[in-house]
Amino acid sequence: LQVLGFKGRLRASVLREALKALGVLVWKVRAHFTDNGLHVRAVNAENVAMVILDVPRKSFESYSGQNLTVGLDLDRLNESIKAFRADEIVEVAINESLTLKNGKITYRLPLINPKAIRRDPKIPELNLPAKIVMSVGEFKKIVKLAEEIADDVVLESDGDSFTIHAKGDLESMRATLTETKLIEFSGGKARSMFGVYYLKSFCKAANDKDKLTIYLGTDYPAKFVLDKSDFRVEYILAPRIEAEN
Amino acid sequence: LQVLGFKGRLRASVLREALKALGVLVWKVRAHFTDNGLHVRAVNAENVAMVILDVPRKSFESYSGQNLTVGLDLDRLNESIKAFRADEIVEVAINESLTLKNGKITYRLPLINPKAIRRDPKIPELNLPAKIVMSVGEFKKIVKLAEEIADDVVLESDGDSFTIHAKGDLESMRATLTETKLIEFSGGKARSMFGVYYLKSFCKAANDKDKLTIYLGTDYPAKFVLDKSDFRVEYILAPRIEAEN
Amino acid sequence: LQVLGFKGRLRASVLREALKALGVLVWKVRAHFTDNGLHVRAVNAENVAMVILDVPRKSFESYSGQNLTVGLDLDRLNESIKAFRADEIVEVAINESLTLKNGKITYRLPLINPKAIRRDPKIPELNLPAKIVMSVGEFKKIVKLAEEIADDVVLESDGDSFTIHAKGDLESMRATLTETKLIEFSGGKARSMFGVYYLKSFCKAANDKDKLTIYLGTDYPAKFVLDKSDFRVEYILAPRIEAEN
Repeated sequence: LQVLGFKGRLRASVLREALKALGVLVWKVRAHFTDNGLHVRAVNAENVAMVILDVPRKSFESYSGQNLTVGLDLDRLNESIKAFRADEIVEVAINESLTLKNGKITYRLPLINPKAIRRDPKIPELNLPAKIVMSVGEFKKIVKLAEEIADDVVLESDGDSFTIHAKGDLESMRATLTETKLIEFSGGKARSMFGVYYLKSFCKAANDKDKLTIYLGTDYPAKFVLDKSDFRVEYILAPRIEAEN
Repeated sequence: LQVLGFKGRLRASVLREALKALGVLVWKVRAHFTDNGLHVRAVNAENVAMVILDVPRKSFESYSGQNLTVGLDLDRLNESIKAFRADEIVEVAINESLTLKNGKITYRLPLINPKAIRRDPKIPELNLPAKIVMSVGEFKKIVKLAEEIADDVVLESDGDSFTIHAKGDLESMRATLTETKLIEFSGGKARSMFGVYYLKSFCKAANDKDKLTIYLGTDYPAKFVLDKSDFRVEYILAPRIEAEN
Repeated sequence: LQVLGFKGRLRASVLREALKALGVLVWKVRAHFTDNGLHVRAVNAENVAMVILDVPRKSFESYSGQNLTVGLDLDRLNESIKAFRADEIVEVAINESLTLKNGKITYRLPLINPKAIRRDPKIPELNLPAKIVMSVGEFKKIVKLAEEIADDVVLESDGDSFTIHAKGDLESMRATLTETKLIEFSGGKARSMFGVYYLKSFCKAANDKDKLTIYLGTDYPAKFVLDKSDFRVEYILAPRIEAEN
């Protein structure tokens, strides 16, 4: 059997969540179907945040075809994937267009020339002294709180605890999580400030019970990793400069 | 007991759903209270779709009075009926105004002179070769999908299956339902295109589990019938012309 | 232990609901922490409605400090209290600012100079012949109905029943509750008209199952009392003048 282009089958929910993880930063992506699975990496328009998505080959029910790179419009793809039930297996076929189908419904979408989409970024090597693992639900709750007060939020780690704080013109908030309240914690000294908008976005593709791993440095980009059962998404976020007080 | 005008009692939910079935096409109707029950038929302002509603006498707990025709403002009536619990029996009394009441609440609404409302349409005789019965939920799901792509949708029947397809400038979708996936199917050859907006509207008064019967011809008006346990509503929809490709 | 200012601990839900009860009429209040608990009273900007709130000392888990009066911005306070789970115990500390905290989260808000806030109103002595006790849910349902028809609603009591009616230009509604449908009823003759907007607001801090006690006179201010398990809120509302028919 000679397959032109690519053909794979996977659960609709996996595709939906993976697209959502990308969609918080970018609208068009170059998607690479390789021997290892689907790989996408992209930087947002403001050059502040990067997303790296991997849906491994084993998360697909079947997977065949040549290695290829195509341009995808996430917005339209998101609309289409809604047509399928979360637990349904969807066939994704790529040749001159992209086709999504199950036994009953066929959906055809145009591809974008990948050359019309910004080049893949180089993934930076980061040496980050603190590692914090917590539930997405917990992180989200604190970030939402901080958002009410300020646009920037400070993430800080010392030997004992991980702290998130925000300071508005009049109000302030501080949430301190000691080791016992975290899933895992190896806290080197680290402190960086980030845009709260980004921290909030990173949680969108995750469920409250998913684990979030944060790798943190001082005035340095941080990594936020979601290890979902069927795919992995990593965000790298540039710090903001803390003004002197 | 001499009853002037009309007096009937029925479950609030029946009245509410029947009004909703009308409301998707028209705002003011002539309602006929006859020996057989409540009958309404009306054409929408664009002359594209007709609705025929029958709430049989047996769907009322009690039903008495002369035959009469009154003008109703559906919008106001809809607001009022919300005051009653779905499973409550409501008394509908009509004399110089319309009164809705249960033991506790009395609601009085003005009537509209029926002469101020567009005349009842004549119901066309249609000879339609294909009959398709499916759940409203299934139909709705496919229509919603098609709506994302195009304003028009083609319904097509052949001996084997019923197909709904839509074609946008760039995208297309096709849902094919074979006989085993339909509740009932006697498929003559038929193919007509309709405004997707109307197909969507027709589902509004129905629950996902209700049965929808479609009678289809070729470039010809189609009938969409909802047989609810307490009333029947039939929509007749004019086709759109398919442009040559 | 010398406590400067005030420090008390109470369930987040109590604080949240009490603030909501105030918030329907005013945005900034003078709050008095006294030996008996928290007391607030205020009149709305239009001088039409007054609210009197009492959270007794026993509704706090702990309560210590001097008697003091502070100015609070309800809007900001409402946002902050959302950070705590309803059943969580929150520590409220007041010195130069207001701090809300549990073991993990600390929230700091500025205080307002109480002199910048309108003086506490004098509570009028009212002699009201009718007393009606009903569930908030029942009252809310009828008020919502009346709201569709008119801006004003008449509350009326006679020896037998309590009636709420509204009359629009074309429509009218009337809900009559006899003694058996009320929780308690000692109905002197009384009749006053009120703005339906206010009646609706008074229900916002209450659950449908809470009891509402109405004290009613004729063309006279009425009292609406919510006795929650942890606090008491009383609204006094000026009547509107019924135009002659």
